[in-house]
Parts: sequence; C-alpha cells; structure tokens
Amino acid sequence: MIREWEPAGQPEEEEVKERLQTAEEKLEMYQLLMKEHRLPVLVLVEGWGAAGKGSVISRVIRDMDPRFFRVAAMGERTQEERRKPFLHRYAVRVPQEGKFEFLDGGWLDETVRDRFYGDLAERDWDRRMESIRRFERQLADNGYLVLKFFFQISAREQRKRLKVLDEDKDTRWRVSRWDRDQNENYEACGELYARALEETDVPWAPWHVVDARDRRWAALQVMEVLCSRLESAFREEREPAPVRPCPFPMVEMPLLSQVDLSARISEEEYKEERRQLQARLGELHNRLYRKKVPVIIVYEGWDAAGKGGNIKRLAGALDPRGYEVIPIASPEPYEKARHYLWRFWTRLPKTGHIAIFDRSWYGRVMVERLEGFCTEDDWRRAYNEINEFERELCDWGAVVVKFWVQIDKDTQLARFRDRERAPEKRWKITDEDWRNREKWDQYEAAVDEMIRKTSTEFAPWYILPSVDKRYARIQAMKIVIQRLEEVLFDRAE
Amino acid sequence: MIREWEPAGQPEEEEVKERLQTAEEKLEMYQLLMKEHRLPVLVLVEGWGAAGKGSVISRVIRDMDPRFFRVAAMGERTQEERRKPFLHRYAVRVPQEGKFEFLDGGWLDETVRDRFYGDLAERDWDRRMESIRRFERQLADNGYLVLKFFFQISAREQRKRLKVLDEDKDTRWRVSRWDRDQNENYEACGELYARALEETDVPWAPWHVVDARDRRWAALQVMEVLCSRLESAFREEREPAPVRPCPFPMVEMPLLSQVDLSARISEEEYKEERRQLQARLGELHNRLYRKKVPVIIVYEGWDAAGKGGNIKRLAGALDPRGYEVIPIASPEPYEKARHYLWRFWTRLPKTGHIAIFDRSWYGRVMVERLEGFCTEDDWRRAYNEINEFERELCDWGAVVVKFWVQIDKDTQLARFRDRERAPEKRWKITDEDWRNREKWDQYEAAVDEMIRKTSTEFAPWYILPSVDKRYARIQAMKIVIQRLEEVLFDRAE
Repeated sequence: MIREWEPAGQPEEEEVKERLQTAEEKLEMYQLLMKEHRLPVLVLVEGWGAAGKGSVISRVIRDMDPRFFRVAAMGERTQEERRKPFLHRYAVRVPQEGKFEFLDGGWLDETVRDRFYGDLAERDWDRRMESIRRFERQLADNGYLVLKFFFQISAREQRKRLKVLDEDKDTRWRVSRWDRDQNENYEACGELYARALEETDVPWAPWHVVDARDRRWAALQVMEVLCSRLESAFREEREPAPVRPCPFPMVEMPLLSQVDLSARISEEEYKEERRQLQARLGELHNRLYRKKVPVIIVYEGWDAAGKGGNIKRLAGALDPRGYEVIPIASPEPYEKARHYLWRFWTRLPKTGHIAIFDRSWYGRVMVERLEGFCTEDDWRRAYNEINEFERELCDWGAVVVKFWVQIDKDTQLARFRDRERAPEKRWKITDEDWRNREKWDQYEAAVDEMIRKTSTEFAPWYILPSVDKRYARIQAMKIVIQRLEEVLFDRAE
Repeated sequence: MIREWEPAGQPEEEEVKERLQTAEEKLEMYQLLMKEHRLPVLVLVEGWGAAGKGSVISRVIRDMDPRFFRVAAMGERTQEERRKPFLHRYAVRVPQEGKFEFLDGGWLDETVRDRFYGDLAERDWDRRMESIRRFERQLADNGYLVLKFFFQISAREQRKRLKVLDEDKDTRWRVSRWDRDQNENYEACGELYARALEETDVPWAPWHVVDARDRRWAALQVMEVLCSRLESAFREEREPAPVRPCPFPMVEMPLLSQVDLSARISEEEYKEERRQLQARLGELHNRLYRKKVPVIIVYEGWDAAGKGGNIKRLAGALDPRGYEVIPIASPEPYEKARHYLWRFWTRLPKTGHIAIFDRSWYGRVMVERLEGFCTEDDWRRAYNEINEFERELCDWGAVVVKFWVQIDKDTQLARFRDRERAPEKRWKITDEDWRNREKWDQYEAAVDEMIRKTSTEFAPWYILPSVDKRYARIQAMKIVIQRLEEVLFDRAE
C-alpha cells in the first residue's frame, strides 16, 4: 500500500486554505448530524514517528465542540495494560454514539513495533492480524464508522524532524527510542508497515495514506476523507451486516430438555467433597496467580436456579484479593451508547486474577433478543461476535468456563413460592421474575440455540443440573478444577 | 493505640462458633437494610503482613450476596496510580449506596511503608495525616459508614507465618519485601503504625484493633464490630454534619455586579495577541509535560457566556496528546450513587497532562443547590469540601485555574436569540436555558457566595469579562500562561 503509493499533487497554498475552510464548515454541520444519527466514529491516526499525527489531530478538532470528541495518545502500554488482552486498550476506548474518538497511534503501530523488537514472534503475526480484522469488522457491523489514516513521510524528512525536536530540551522527550530506531531502520520498518497495512485494508475499514510532508496539506487530506466518509454514512441506508458462519470448531451439546436432572448428593457426601474441592481450589488459585493465568467464569441460568449460592461456594474457596464477582444488571445509559461488549471489555480481570460473571454478555441472545432490546440482525450476529470475543480471551491465555445452571419449571415455581414466604428472601423475587417465567418456552428455545452456537472447543458450555443445588455446586467446583489443572500443569513452569 | 492495647480474652472454640453464626445471620439481614437505607460502607482492613487480612475478609463475605460487596487489594501502586494524587486510588474506590467495599490494606499501610522506605519525608508526614483525616471526614459527613480495623500479631507469630508461606513455591509470591522488612524491623514499624493509628483515630472513623492470632476469632471480632456499627447506623437518625470553618487563607473577590464588562479588543489586536499567546502556551505545554506537572482548568459561567469558544482557543494551542476537555453533564445513576466528588476524582489528569473541565464540581453549589438536588446541609458543607479537594490537588503539585465567564443579562438574551435564529447553533439552546435565565438573580447570589467561599490562595477564581468574547479568550490564555510560568520556572529543573 505504501510501496506503490503515489502522493496526490499538493495544491497551491491558497487552494489548501480555501478547501480547509470548506471542510471545516462541513464538519461543524456533520457533528450535529452524527448526534442525530447516533453515529459513533473511531478515527485511527497511524504513521511514522514525527509525521505530525498529533498536530494534524489538533488542527482537525480545532473547531469541534469538545462534547463531541476525545483524543487518546496510544503510547507504550502501561504495566496495567500489559496485563490485559492485546485488544483491550482499544476496545475500552470505542466512542459513544454521536461522538468521535481519535486515536493517536494504535494497533498498527503497536504491532509493527512489537514485531520489530521481537515482542511479537513471526508465528503470532497472523493471529494478531486476525484479531485486528475481527475487531474492526465487529465495530463496523455494529454501526461504527472506522476511519484509518497512515501518515507517510520519507526517511530524510523524518530525520530532519527528529533532529529539530532533539535540539530543544522541552521537546526532546517527544523523540522516543522507537522513533529513532524507525529512522535508522527505515527500510525494514517500512516493510513491516506495508505488510500490516495490506493485511488490514478491508472494505469496511480501508486505509487512507496521507502525504504528511506539509501539515496543512495533511490536515486537509484527513478532513476531506472525514467529510466524504461521513457524507456516505448519512446518505446511505446502512445495510444490516450479514450473519457470518462460525469459523471455530464446536462441541456438540444436548438440548436443555434432554438434561438429566435427577442427580442428588447426600448432606454428608456434600460436606466432605466440598471441603476437599475448596482446599484444592485454594491451592490452584495460588498457582494461577503465580503463573499469571487469567480466569473468566460465566454463570447463566434460570431465575432461582441457584446461581448465587453456587458462586458463593466457589468464591468461598478463593483468596478475595485475587478474584472479583461481577454482577451484571441492565446496562446504564453510558453503556448502552457503546458496542454491547464494551461493558465486558472494561470488566476483564488482570492476568493471574479470576472474574466471576453473574450473568454476562449472553444477555444479548437471551433477554435482549426476547425483549426486543436489539434487532434480529443484532442478536443473530452476536453468536459469532461472542465466539470471537471469547477466542480473543483464550488467545490471551485465559481459561474461560461457562455454566448454565439448569432446573425444571416446577422446581422454579416451588422456589419462587418459597422466596415469597421467607421475609429475608423476598427481595430476591420480583414481578419481572414472574413475567420471565411466563416466557419459559421462548427462553428455553433461545438458550438451546445459544448453547448450540457458542459451545466452541476453547470455551464450551457446562450445564449444571441444579434441582439439587448441592450437587450443582460440587459439579461446578470439579469442572473449574479440571479446567485449571489442564492449563496449570500443561504450561511450562 | 497498639502500645497499650490488651487483647480481649479469646472465648472457647464452641462459643466462637456460635457467635460467628449469630453475626452471620445478622449480617445477612443487615445487607438488606443497607440497601433500604442506601447506606454505603467502606471497610478498611489494615495490619501487619501475614496477619490474615485476606482470609478474614474471605470469611466475612462468605455468606454475602456478591451484589452487595467488592474487595480490592491495595498493594503497591501501579505506574498509573503513581501519577495520581495520594488519595486518588482510595477515592475512586468508595462504594455505592447500599454496598460494602472492603479494602485489603490501604492508606495506613501505604503511609507507614512510604515513611519506612523514605518515600515520605518526615516533614510531609503531617500533611499526609491531614489528607487522610479530611478524606475520612468527608466520607462520614456525606453519609458513608467508615470502618477501620488493624490486625495485630506479634513479631514471633509473624515470623512463623512468613516461614510457612515461604516454604511453598505456590505461596512464596505472597511474601513481599515489605513483609520481610516489617518482621526484621518489627519495633520500628510498630512505632510507625502506632503513630499513624493514633493520629487517624477520629470519632467518625475510629480504629478497631483486632487480635489476629486466631483466624476464626479475628473474623468474629470483625463481624461483631460490623454488626454493632451497622446497628447504630440503622437506629440513629443521622445528624446533619456541621459546616466547618474554612482553614485556608482566602483571596478577596468582587461581586459579579461589580465586575467591569466594558473591556473590548480590536480584531487585529486579538489576532496578533492570540497568535503569540498560543505559541507561548504550546511551549509551556511541552515543558510541563517534561516536568510532569498536572494542570486542572475549570470553566464555569452563564449559559451563552462563551465558555465553549474560550476553551477551544485555549485547547487549540495544546498538543492533543497532552490534554483532555471534560464536558460535565448531569450525573448518571452510578455516579449519583456515590460521593459527589467521585466522578471528578475518576477524571483527574495524570501528571504532565492538562484537564479542562467544561463545568465541574461547582455544580454542587449552583444547580444542585438551586434545583434542590441536594440538601441545604449538603451544599453548605460543600464549599469547604471543595476547598479541601482542591488543596489535595495542589499538594499533589497540580496547577488549578478556575474561570468564571461573566456576561450581563442583556448580552445573554441577545445571544440566546441569535442562537435560535441560526440553524447550526439551535441545538445549543434548550428550554432549560430559558428556565435557568428566569432564575438569574438566584444564580447570581449563589455564584457570588461560591466565588467568595472558594477563592483560596492556592486555587483562586478568575472572573473573565466576556461581553467581548475575544477579550475573554485573550485574558484566559494570559492567566493560564502566568500561572504556568510561576510554577514552571519556580520548580527546580
């Protein structure tokens, strides 16, 4: 892309000035249309060090209302960011509806830098590219406009600029080791950039190479692309994104109606087993902390199936410094204004930590589907998006365990009645629970579909028969232990 | 406190068991009452390394519903946390109404550790203690229950425990350098702990020393204190917290009606001055980035006074990687459920960065006061709380600049009409603006009081006459430049 690329002829100064003014006026109006159309726009500004990314962003936002944009400088990862998946720092920065997010540097530069310094092995390159493509596609499919710019300057121009910055102690800090290394290895870095650009140049998020020799001219190129992409977005009716086939190998799962719920365990057996399993879990928790393995446990299930008690027993074995239970309620307004996975990206554990989700992103294909909180296209696409999300977590090294806590309709009724009778439990039962119960059959069909479509080999569902809650608790602990042991004794010390 | 402290006699095992069960049952019921009373509870668990803080927390939460609590391990600061004020990591973790937050370690341990290693100079000790006391008092005054425990064990007991942990490679990581140093310098550390405990033992947040030799017994002590403090909180009508006199030296300020609004500047003068000032601001921005000075600029002012345009011109001179404009709208539900300053604590810049607040925490004493979103006690107390908050920022090294953008009533009317006529500006004017205008006199009185009561020497207000918007912009830039120069050329290279 940058190999055969030829810069467009740079217009005269006077023309640049005029066109800048036109673009500025348009953008001022488009801000309002973005708000109206509730369009979120992610602008990725990539390119060579000292190519002027920052100052062009500065020029572009000069006349925007600060309520409509944010700028983030994506420098080197902080310690904290290093303990999260590659995509995490980008995923948590996706803009809200109606707003711009400008990223100064991003996943392209990070990948090239990682590869250059050997932090990304050649054999992991493809996986990285795949992550990026999936991320951008998910954004586009969910109504995001993704704009990507690459700022191109020659080795000579770059050298000149770095020298100027270097000469003043107040600007010297701006020149990083990476900038210098780029310039000294301009050819090699150029090749990496070219390769990454080509492999992420996709129809829903194409690259725009910017001739960055002159700052005003660079700003104009960016602003005119912004205008034309926004124009199309406002003009064209957005086609619903297609439902893509799942590329991952799946585990075959039974229907809920086929699950045997008869299993029971005696009080004594339960106590003895629980004691042993909790001790083992405690040991494993220490080990996974030391080995920095992140663990994500998802609980879904019928109301009154016993999720809460199950989570308690599992968590009771863990060191509270190393895990968090994350109860998921309906999204708040600032959460609804973003990609539906955003509120889960922001809640991921650090490496070595355990996150237990009490309800999860599967709300998309259950309650949001059945209550009409998203369109049919949205939830149909979500199976694959969720698989991709979990794939990302597993690629990061996470253990992902998903439980469906299963009971039958009669058991639920008995437990609802029980809750209504006991004053200390009454808060647990609401009118909504009764309403959901009326839709049992619809929910059951949705859950069957969900389990079938999201039981990947790397993140399968486990159905926990929970008519006997104690039995379900023992099962949950056993499964978590088994999954942890697989990973902890498999990975080299 | 721990010098003369004598452990209470430890009851027989059977009694401990029974009392634990009673406490557990009470706590289960109290959770619901917390929810009902919308009571937020912060539980600080401090003490010697290996005193069993984690496992006691684990025991206490064992039967709680995960929706009602969170646990945070406050280990060493991350890089990110080091670039924020001392209180920041604690302030951002205050619980929501109706919920527990358990902190495993906290400001006591951090202070003692910092002092021990010399990261906190003796001359800064008192200031640190003052910060802590202010923080706890503000929480208590705003309806938080603050519970503080110190886990006491002997040097011998600690040595024994560290040895056990050290012997297993899966638990060795739990023993930190600080734990070892504590044990080797038990006397010296004990003295520091004792001193910090005494100086932060206040009526609204007293310390509870826990005999931590036996884990069950320790858990019982904690749970019984929890129960009794919760009981009192539910039983007693909370007295409104007193309005405390401001301890800081103030700057005398004029009333708004005394401000001369006649200043004007010609178009040419404006352009020339702006160019020079923006260049200077750009230079200073580089320098403060290098020197890691955080800057906080607050804009408040009448609707249509020209805040937005003023912010734009100021920001236009800055590198977008180093500043953020933070528009403040009305709080979302998750924000309302916490201390009103929480949403500003979470938005502070890092060192070396600039945060420009478009409206701010001063909403408490303007819109929240006049619209009745908080009680009279709340806003009367807020002046001092805000001064303390800003004191904290200045102690951290921040430059705090506060602008009131001032116009007269006629100018506002003219601008409102103008906005209604221009289609691209119409979104800027709402019915609420007209309603606020009707309350001009009430607002003016509130603003006068606010400016008088929160113009401290370290964070004074600057009133910007903005009938001529260009004049106000030039003034704003000059003031920011002056404040930055004072700091940047004062602080050693």
